[in-house]
Amino acid sequence: MKRDGIVKGKFISFEGPDGAGKTTALNKVVTDLTPVLKDKLVVTREPGGNRISEAIRHIILDRKNTEMDDRTEALLYAAARRQHIVETIQPALDENKLVLCDRYIDSSVAYQGAGRQIGTTEVYQMNLFATGGLLPNLTIYFDVPSEVGLQRIMTHRTDEINRLDVEQLSFHQRVRKSYLEIAKAQPQRIKVIDATKSKDQVVQDVEKIIYAANQEFFN
Amino acid sequence: MKRDGIVKGKFISFEGPDGAGKTTALNKVVTDLTPVLKDKLVVTREPGGNRISEAIRHIILDRKNTEMDDRTEALLYAAARRQHIVETIQPALDENKLVLCDRYIDSSVAYQGAGRQIGTTEVYQMNLFATGGLLPNLTIYFDVPSEVGLQRIMTHRTDEINRLDVEQLSFHQRVRKSYLEIAKAQPQRIKVIDATKSKDQVVQDVEKIIYAANQEFFN
Repeated sequence: MKRDGIVKGKFISFEGPDGAGKTTALNKVVTDLTPVLKDKLVVTREPGGNRISEAIRHIILDRKNTEMDDRTEALLYAAARRQHIVETIQPALDENKLVLCDRYIDSSVAYQGAGRQIGTTEVYQMNLFATGGLLPNLTIYFDVPSEVGLQRIMTHRTDEINRLDVEQLSFHQRVRKSYLEIAKAQPQRIKVIDATKSKDQVVQDVEKIIYAANQEFFN
Repeated sequence: MKRDGIVKGKFISFEGPDGAGKTTALNKVVTDLTPVLKDKLVVTREPGGNRISEAIRHIILDRKNTEMDDRTEALLYAAARRQHIVETIQPALDENKLVLCDRYIDSSVAYQGAGRQIGTTEVYQMNLFATGGLLPNLTIYFDVPSEVGLQRIMTHRTDEINRLDVEQLSFHQRVRKSYLEIAKAQPQRIKVIDATKSKDQVVQDVEKIIYAANQEFFN
């Protein structure tokens, strides 16, 4: 985790509630940026494909584990995150890559801290242990009203409903409120996108932000 | 995790380095106390036999996971601990039992915090998230010089050497030093036993402490 005192690479996270169109937009952005950035671009998402994080995720998402406590779940997400950082994100940053990551620490604060009501400060602090303090240089938050997000999930993703998706509307409203609070508290890091716009417009907005904040990669 | 404002039950943890004879002594104590306390006595150890904690322990102890980061390991231990509390320890305390637990939070501080050099304060804070602040009423620490402990491991436990046992002497010395520091910092909670004494003497010392601190269970 040493960075030799030299800031290398750039780390961008994509955040938002389920159904915000975040992953769809990320895929389009990657299609657009790959011809320009080539092997300077690294795209990843938790658990990140490593053996340990995948094994942890298997425990979290196992529908049989209905007895799982909320804090147990939060600790497991943090453990998978840690291993993903060590095996994927930090090595890419050390090689001066532009790293796009689908979900990171803010997801835990919003989902476990606010959604599951463990407490946002406690979950954030615990995740600072997991990340060793590594925060994204830039976070793009896809904002949609909870009703819109949930409606999109129900329409498009019936094949992959998991434990998180079956939660109530109030849960999703707490998640959104928390994301907006984090964005307000850390405006330098977090840029809010209106994800109710058309897909093309959302992708344009995202790319404009990425270009502006990372010009050294595009010159 | 609500305790209704009423302190119920008593929670005693057994702590010490590998080879201190902690588990052997615990077994003898249980044999002696069971006729007296009957179903008031609950004996447990992490991961505690529940599905989720066992699955987590499987990931931690899998020799194939040589790439596991130290903080990932610490988070996984904390996750297994949390689930053990929720499914076993807290319910027993709520039923006013005397709970004896083989290892708890101090093991993580000593092994991950000091042994693996993550930092004792950071590991303790992270574990307070996991435990929700539940500390033992009494902790019995089995103290032996690291050389003695390691020698005992090599002689008696060749059939169950795991990833932790193959660490170096310096690791075990850091662990012992940390345990002694915790004991010094929290003398009310932690009682130090000289575990170089004979097995019978150690058991006597342990039982004397348990009787003195929990007289309400023996009257």
